[in-house]
Parts: sequence; structure tokens; C-alpha cells
Amino acid sequence: MQIYKAPITDMRFAFETFGYDAVMKLKRFADYDLDTVEALLGEAGKFCTNEMLPLNRVGDQVGLKWDPESGEVVLPDGFKKLYADYVASGLVGIAQPVAYGGGGAPHAVSVGLSELATATNKSFSMCPGLNHGLIEALHHHGTDQQKKDWLPKLVSGEWTGTMCLTEPQCGTDLGLITTRAEPRDDGGYSLTGTKIWITFGEHDLTDNIVHLVLARLPDAPEGIKGISAFLVPKFLLDGTRNGIKCGGLEHKMGIHASPTCVMNMEDATGYLVGTPHKGMRSMFVMMNAARLHVGIEGIALGEIAYQTAVAFCHDRRQGRSLNPERNEGGAKADNILVHPDVRRQLLNCKSTNEGLRGLSAWIANLIDRSHYAEDPDERQEADDLVALLTPIIKAYGTERGFRNINDALQVTGGAGYTTDWSIEQYLRDSRIALIYEGTNHVQALDLVGRKLPRAGGRLYKVFSKHVHRFCKAHEEAGTHAEFVGPTRKAIDTLNEVTMALAMKGMSDGEAAAAAASNYLTLFGLTTLAYIWAAEAVAASEKDGKFYRTKLKTARFFFEHVLPETDSLVRMVDASKDSMMAFDEDEF
Amino acid sequence: MQIYKAPITDMRFAFETFGYDAVMKLKRFADYDLDTVEALLGEAGKFCTNEMLPLNRVGDQVGLKWDPESGEVVLPDGFKKLYADYVASGLVGIAQPVAYGGGGAPHAVSVGLSELATATNKSFSMCPGLNHGLIEALHHHGTDQQKKDWLPKLVSGEWTGTMCLTEPQCGTDLGLITTRAEPRDDGGYSLTGTKIWITFGEHDLTDNIVHLVLARLPDAPEGIKGISAFLVPKFLLDGTRNGIKCGGLEHKMGIHASPTCVMNMEDATGYLVGTPHKGMRSMFVMMNAARLHVGIEGIALGEIAYQTAVAFCHDRRQGRSLNPERNEGGAKADNILVHPDVRRQLLNCKSTNEGLRGLSAWIANLIDRSHYAEDPDERQEADDLVALLTPIIKAYGTERGFRNINDALQVTGGAGYTTDWSIEQYLRDSRIALIYEGTNHVQALDLVGRKLPRAGGRLYKVFSKHVHRFCKAHEEAGTHAEFVGPTRKAIDTLNEVTMALAMKGMSDGEAAAAAASNYLTLFGLTTLAYIWAAEAVAASEKDGKFYRTKLKTARFFFEHVLPETDSLVRMVDASKDSMMAFDEDEF
Repeated sequence: MQIYKAPITDMRFAFETFGYDAVMKLKRFADYDLDTVEALLGEAGKFCTNEMLPLNRVGDQVGLKWDPESGEVVLPDGFKKLYADYVASGLVGIAQPVAYGGGGAPHAVSVGLSELATATNKSFSMCPGLNHGLIEALHHHGTDQQKKDWLPKLVSGEWTGTMCLTEPQCGTDLGLITTRAEPRDDGGYSLTGTKIWITFGEHDLTDNIVHLVLARLPDAPEGIKGISAFLVPKFLLDGTRNGIKCGGLEHKMGIHASPTCVMNMEDATGYLVGTPHKGMRSMFVMMNAARLHVGIEGIALGEIAYQTAVAFCHDRRQGRSLNPERNEGGAKADNILVHPDVRRQLLNCKSTNEGLRGLSAWIANLIDRSHYAEDPDERQEADDLVALLTPIIKAYGTERGFRNINDALQVTGGAGYTTDWSIEQYLRDSRIALIYEGTNHVQALDLVGRKLPRAGGRLYKVFSKHVHRFCKAHEEAGTHAEFVGPTRKAIDTLNEVTMALAMKGMSDGEAAAAAASNYLTLFGLTTLAYIWAAEAVAASEKDGKFYRTKLKTARFFFEHVLPETDSLVRMVDASKDSMMAFDEDEF
Repeated sequence: MQIYKAPITDMRFAFETFGYDAVMKLKRFADYDLDTVEALLGEAGKFCTNEMLPLNRVGDQVGLKWDPESGEVVLPDGFKKLYADYVASGLVGIAQPVAYGGGGAPHAVSVGLSELATATNKSFSMCPGLNHGLIEALHHHGTDQQKKDWLPKLVSGEWTGTMCLTEPQCGTDLGLITTRAEPRDDGGYSLTGTKIWITFGEHDLTDNIVHLVLARLPDAPEGIKGISAFLVPKFLLDGTRNGIKCGGLEHKMGIHASPTCVMNMEDATGYLVGTPHKGMRSMFVMMNAARLHVGIEGIALGEIAYQTAVAFCHDRRQGRSLNPERNEGGAKADNILVHPDVRRQLLNCKSTNEGLRGLSAWIANLIDRSHYAEDPDERQEADDLVALLTPIIKAYGTERGFRNINDALQVTGGAGYTTDWSIEQYLRDSRIALIYEGTNHVQALDLVGRKLPRAGGRLYKVFSKHVHRFCKAHEEAGTHAEFVGPTRKAIDTLNEVTMALAMKGMSDGEAAAAAASNYLTLFGLTTLAYIWAAEAVAASEKDGKFYRTKLKTARFFFEHVLPETDSLVRMVDASKDSMMAFDEDEF
């Protein structure tokens, strides 16, 4: 049973509430007013629901074929046609630069599309999803010739791209990379080494696959400062098969139709992208966008799991309401939506998922403003917020998404544990998002160790002031106290906790690291408080059922979800000593 | 990679700390001193590790074969021999009544065995695990002839048993059962209907399978008070094939080697067990034990997942310690146990898992005392505690177990997401335990709606006084304040919250139901505080590394886990209104 209704209305509301008006004013997005964005996402939603969703379970159950001889990988029946249709639909390059044939749409479109595609077929969506990263890296760091040679076909979707970072001995710690790149006389490089966890490293959807590979030049300094980036295609421009081959697939808990490849390079031809030894810069360029998109995976699968559970509840009758007024006359049992705990679990999903969608919309709008706003101060402020909020949407979005799918599964009981309702697949598919693109604790370290201290704490101050201004305006007007009051309390608490953590971190980095994950969750919930307060204010100014439900959902969030912060405050404050006291053989 | 070391030392410590001396004094357990229990569990641990664990992944990946014609089900290669070896080992009837050929061991043995078997092969362990329920039902409610006919071969493991409760239209709400039982002239009954979710309802491990089936007699009152229990064997005693047949298997997220059967009965011969219309009594007899064993599933899989993650961490090197003193000289990276967040996640598992093991040991000892203590007051008090703590170990044990496996998976990163390390299997296998044997919210309703009000709140008072006495003794002696202080605070808080919830529940059952799940979690954490304080006191009186690590783990629990209660207190206190305000079409 695969159930999905693209949440376009909520997407539009989120973009509108969190500053799309400022994006629309940017010249380059003049063609993309909010109606256009909504229409585009509406069309995308139809494609995803009608074409991608039906192949989602097939992908899970049929999986992939890998030929050890040739190294070729075959996707399940239907995926090749689906990819061709996806390319034909024009969705693949919609948010790519116009200069290379893309649609030049704002991030609102790519973020909305990302949610729709992930919800309906996460395995499939990972293929076009990866192009963005490679395109951004080439766009910012490639030579003019490289751009001319590779970008148009990547933008059109005729070819696909990958990112080759991880090796068997290093994932989080990329300083340990050992893949070698030897210069050749012709200006190219010869690459040798093994990369693992390469998503869509090999497949049969397109004629060529273009890899961005991190490797070391012979004179490279040790560690992270000696890594360069290379473009390594499966086929060279003259059609020669290059020395990069898939050496096997991982057997995974989920995303069974997404090939996770071991890629072996033996004297493979590569082209340097950007400056020698500065390869990590090319990576960082795309990290914010990639991490935002991974965060959205939590929202996407949380949404479809929630919708599936709701559909199940409408039909399932067990027990009677404890409130006789809700008993359906003539029936032996009421539908399970009468039970408060079913509602509690569903509303936990709904309120956090819509809150995270609001956050993702805010970040999407901020990314565009950070790049293209005319006022440098506006650009800087937007950039600060993007840098600060990216680890939060990635880590809290994926963690909460997994938890929400798990709650949706619980609501459906035994049915949810079977493959019949697909929720168990969403749970398995979503689990990897807490790990890849920087594990969630790496996000927490990024937040605490890099983003908070940067520029003397400027990023945090920008955020805190933004929330403060919002609260103050309504406090002075005496409006919306039921939402603004707890938001004020939450931001004041976060201010205190942040200050205390910074003090602790100055003298003891290990203590800050011990608190980082819980701090990130606290930050995430506080941010959602602001998001919900802002959405409640916006909804209260409008009429209609959608907005009335918004207000109810906001109330649930403040009453039943936000209190999670109380425990987190205590845990962030707890000492590292009780962790560090253990000898390694005591675990 | 399947890693397991049977946690026998911790089991012994738990039984010892939580009253095994009182069990040993009972005449019928005179042969089972603690050394004997430890030796038995040690042998069982070897069998489970050497014989059951190697087939665990095979079971997951090969799965089951069902023949639509015959309805027969074939388990993966090796399972039939494993079952025969298991029977030959003597483990199957070790805790069953001596009168029918069992070993008559105390619950300490069956609870310990349950953990070992579930950890090493949950699918397989479900088969002998179900016998206990049927044996108990026959033992308490069967006629002498029924006992003579069926019990010896069930106790010896020559035959297996099932429980047939659920039907397509009813799981939680058994009042909706429609399977019919018509009396025949010979004193037997003819049963017709369909049961679903029947674990090991059909398999090829034994010659016969004996089902305990809930059904309605023609003159049955409506609802839950019109249900009778029947024994329905696959083969009658004269060898005739009975009219009960497997009509299909569920396709599930996990426990792939455990057949979850649709069982169709057409004019099947059945024998009434117990009084007509009082079949639910037979069920309630076995519910406490069955729910305890399901709670232990969380501990079992939490343990093996934790051990696997620890083994991974010892080998995995990424990044350097933030504390230069911990940097390993000559290495490019330290093993990841240096990182506080890795420790935090591992210790979350370790501390809650060992705490839950302590709780399960306490309940196991209490069950034996509730049945066999000479003093009726001791029996009553033990029975009260068992009744109160059973929903807690079932729901909190499975919920925390799932969360712990999830944390173990996170620590292992991408490796944990592959099938190579089996943690992802443990996560999938464990997920059903939050649902079956009464969903976790049903446990919460049992706690709040039945156990708290019973006998004017006597059960809760017994528990609260028990913890109070423990705290008071140490407060007066001025000892162990670091553990007793927070335990005192936790029990005082639980007392207040319980009183407030009872008040709320008197006037508004729906409000109590809305708070029940969070209340159960709060109760679970408070109980673990007592368990840890008691273990810390016991450990501080002994010497040796095991006990020193215990003390460290207790400290971690109080500092980093118990604070979760703060948020729960607020959530229990929150109003139901923000849940109930939603119309059904607003979800």
C-alpha cells in the first residue's frame, strides 16, 4: 500500500512565511514568483507520485545486479525508462545554472523537488540528487574547458555524477585518504586507489558517469591539507573506457535500488579540478547544499510514513473511545483516531515534520539570498544563518525523521511491520541519512567546534537576534503570546546554554564534544519553536481549514514536543567525567 | 560479523542483587543454588553462541518456504538439526514443571536462557519460547486427561505449541473475535475461522503442533466476555490430520526465519480448555510471563548490538582524541573509543541495558516468590510487584532496546548499515517487540488503567515503599549518597506525578490515556534509578574490575540518562486538549 499526496500547500506556505518575497526580488529569479514555484512543484509532485512511487517497492524487493566480470550494474526493471522520463520531464536541470542549459530556478524549487522525489523513491532520487554536488564543484572550481566539456550533459541529465571521498580506512577522517594521483606528461593525472560507499558509482541509466575523486598528489602534505580533487569519467571524451571500475556492491539495510559501489581505479585518467592540495575546498562548496538535501530526506520519508499511517488509522477499528461522545453509533469499535495515544504519535510526526519543512524552506531562501542579494550585509547575514543552520537541518532533520517514521510504524501495529504498507521500507531507507554526508555527531562538532566560534560568535548572534526581534515585535504588540511566550523562553535558555558551553569548550574541547550532540538537538527544537511561532502568526492572519489546522498543530508542538528541551539542557550541562572514566577494555 | 559473549557474570550479579536468596530458600528450588544457575546459563550460553548464532544470519537471508498446496512451511537449512540439538541439550523443558518431565528450574534460569537465545537467534528462539505459554495454560486450566495427553511431549519439545488470538479485524481489541466453535456430540468442538500473526503456526521442526485457539461458542455473550479457549492440534492423538492449515506467511521487516502464519480452520477438531466464555483467563495466566520475555528481547538484542559496536570501535581508527594525552603515539588516528560521543552512545546502551537486566532479574525472582513463598503476605507483595512491573519491562524494555540497537548502529557508521555486521538485522528483528504481546501503549493503559487503581492503589504503594525503604536505610546510614540521592528525588517525583495522574484519571479517562505512554517511560526510568542504586551499593561492597565498572556505569546512568525524566514529567502534565482538538480529517 503506497500512499502519497504531495504536500504542495504546506511547501508554498513555508516558502512564503520564511522570506520568499526577498528571493523573488532578486533579478535572476524574476520568472519564479510563488505561483510559478507552486505550479512547478505541483507538476513535479504528479510525476513523483505517478511514475516514481510505483517503482519504489519494486526497487526495494528486486534490488541490483552486479557483474563481477565487467563491473557493470543493472537496476531493476523500469528504472531505466523512469530515468529517461525524468530527464524528459525537465526536472533534472531545473535548478541548475542557465549558462549550462539549466532552468535557473531558486532553491525553493530544488528543495521542494528534493522532498517529493525522496518521499516517493529515495533510491532513485539519489542518482539525480548527486549531480548537484558535482555541478556546483565544477561551476566554482573547474576550468572553462572543463565546464564546457562536462557541464551541459550533466545539467541535462544525459550523464550522471558522483562524489568519491570515502576509502576503507577513512570515512569521517578524510585526512587518511591514500588514493594516489601521478601527473602525466599531457597535463592529466593517473589515479590509483579504492573508493567505497560510492552512490550510483556504476549503473545502467546513462551512457557515461563522471566521478569527482579526492586523491593525493606525490608532493602532497600529510593529512587533510594534502588532498586534491580530480574529475574521473567512466568514458573519456573520445569514447575510451577509463580505468575505473565497480568492484562490488554493499549489501545494505535499505535503499536497495541505489547502488553503493566499491570503485577501483587502476591508472585511471583524471583531470585536476581547482588548486592542488585544496580539494577539500571543492567539497565544502557543495557541503551546505548536500547536507540540506540529506536533512530533507528525513522530512520526505517522515511525510510519506505519516500519510500512510493516517490512511491506515481511518480504516482501522479497534476498541471504543474513552469519551462516549466519540463512540460511533452502530459500530462495534471506533476507528483508532479516537485514541489519544494514536493522535499523540501522529501529531509528534506532523508537528516536527512540518516544522522541519519550515526550517528547510527558510534555509533554501537564505541560500539564494546569500549568493545573490545586492546588499553585502544581507548576503553575509544570510550566509551566516545558512552555515549555522545547515548542521541542524542535517542532523536533527534525519534523526527526527527516523523517529517519526518509527512512530508511524508503531501506530499501524503489526501491519506496519509487514512489507504490505511500505513504512518498514521507509524506516530502513531513512536510516542511512543519520550516517552519510557527515554523521550526525560530525554535524554536532561542526556546529559547536566551527560554527559557534566563527567570527567571534557572529553566526549565533545573528540567529539569536533574529528570533529575539521576532519575539520582541509581538511582545510589544501584545499579540500571539501563546506561541511567542514559549519561544522567548526557549531562545533565552539556548542563549544561556550556548554561553556556558562556549566557556566550557574554551578550556576543554573534549567536554564540549561530549555535550555537542545533545546541544544540537536542543538547538533544533529551539529553532522549531521559532518556526512554529512564525507559522502560527502567519496562519492566524489567514482564513481556511489549512490555516486553522496549522494553529492547532503549533499548539501541540509547544505543549507536547518543546518540553523535550528540559532534559537536553540538563544533559548538555552534565560532566564528561562519567564518560571518560572508563578504560577502553571496560566497554 | 557476529560477535557475542554471553553476559553470565552480569546475570548472576543481577539475580543475586535482586533477591535470589529468597528464591533459593523455597523448597522446590533447593537444587538450584546460584552456582548451579550460573553453570546452567554458562552451558546454555555456549550452546547459543556456538550453535544458534551461526544460523542467525542464514535465517535472515534465506527465510522461509511455504507451499500453497499443502500449507507446509520449510525453515532454512540447518534449523531442523538445530532444533533437535536444542531438545537434546535439555534446555527446552528446563524451567517446566517436574510433574510433566521438566527440570523445575526457577525463573532465573528461564529468564537468563530467554536472553541468551533471543540474542543469538531471535527467530529460532520464538519457537520454544511459545511453548511456555501453552504449557502454563494447560497446567492451570486443562483437565487431567488433557495434561496427560499433551503436556509431556510439549515439555520435552517433541511437539511445539502456539497461541492463536489475533484475527484480521482484531488484534488489540480481542472482543471482536469471530472464530466459531460448535459443540459436537462426542464432547469435542468444531472450529471454523481464520487466525493471523500465528508465530510458528506451521513449520517442519516437529511432528505435531498444538494450538491454543480463542473462539466463540454459539451461546457466547458479545465481546471479550464471550471468548473460550480451545486446544486444536495439527494432528489428533490418533494421527488424523486436523482441519487447521497454514494459508500463507506474512512478509516482514525482520525475524525472517520465524514463520508468521495465517491459520485457517475449517471444521477443525478442538478441545475446550477451562470454563466456557472464560478463555481470556487462560490468556491472562500466561501474559505476565510472556510480557516479561518480550521485554527481555529488548535487552537481548540490545546486548549483542552493543557488543558488536564495541568490537567495531576497538578496531576502527578515525581522527585524534581532543585530549592529547589519549593520542596513540605513532598512529595516524586513534581508535574511536577516544571520542566522547562514541562513549556517550555506547554508555547509553550499556547503562540502560544492564539496568533493564537487573529489572528483569528482580521480576523473575518475584514471580517465583509470588507462586511459592510460604508467607501469604510475601506472596501477595511479590505478586503486586510483578503485576505492576510487567508492563514496564515489556514496553520500556523493548522501546529502549530498539533505541539502544539504533545507537549501536550509529556508532558503527556505514558499516552498521550493511548486512556485514548484523546490527541492522538486530534492529529489524527487535522492532516487532514494541508491537506484539500487547502494543507498548496497551502496556501503558494496563499500567495506568488497571494496575494503578487495583486494590485502592496497593500495587503502587508496595513499589514506592520498597524504594523508599531502600533510600531511607542508606540516608540514615549516610552511605552511597551519590546514588541514593537522585533515586530519592526520582521516586518522590514519581509519587507526585502518579497522584496527579490518578486525580486526572478519575474525572477524565481520556486525559489519563493521553499521558499513559510518557508516564510509563517515566516509571521505567525511575525504576532503573532504583535498580542502579541497588547495584551500585552491592558492587561497592565487592572487589574486582567487574564491580568497579558497575560503579562507573551507575554514575553515567544518573548523570546522563536519568535526566530524561525532566521532560517526561512535563509531558505527562500536558493537557490532552491539543491532541483532541483535531477533527479526524485534519490529520
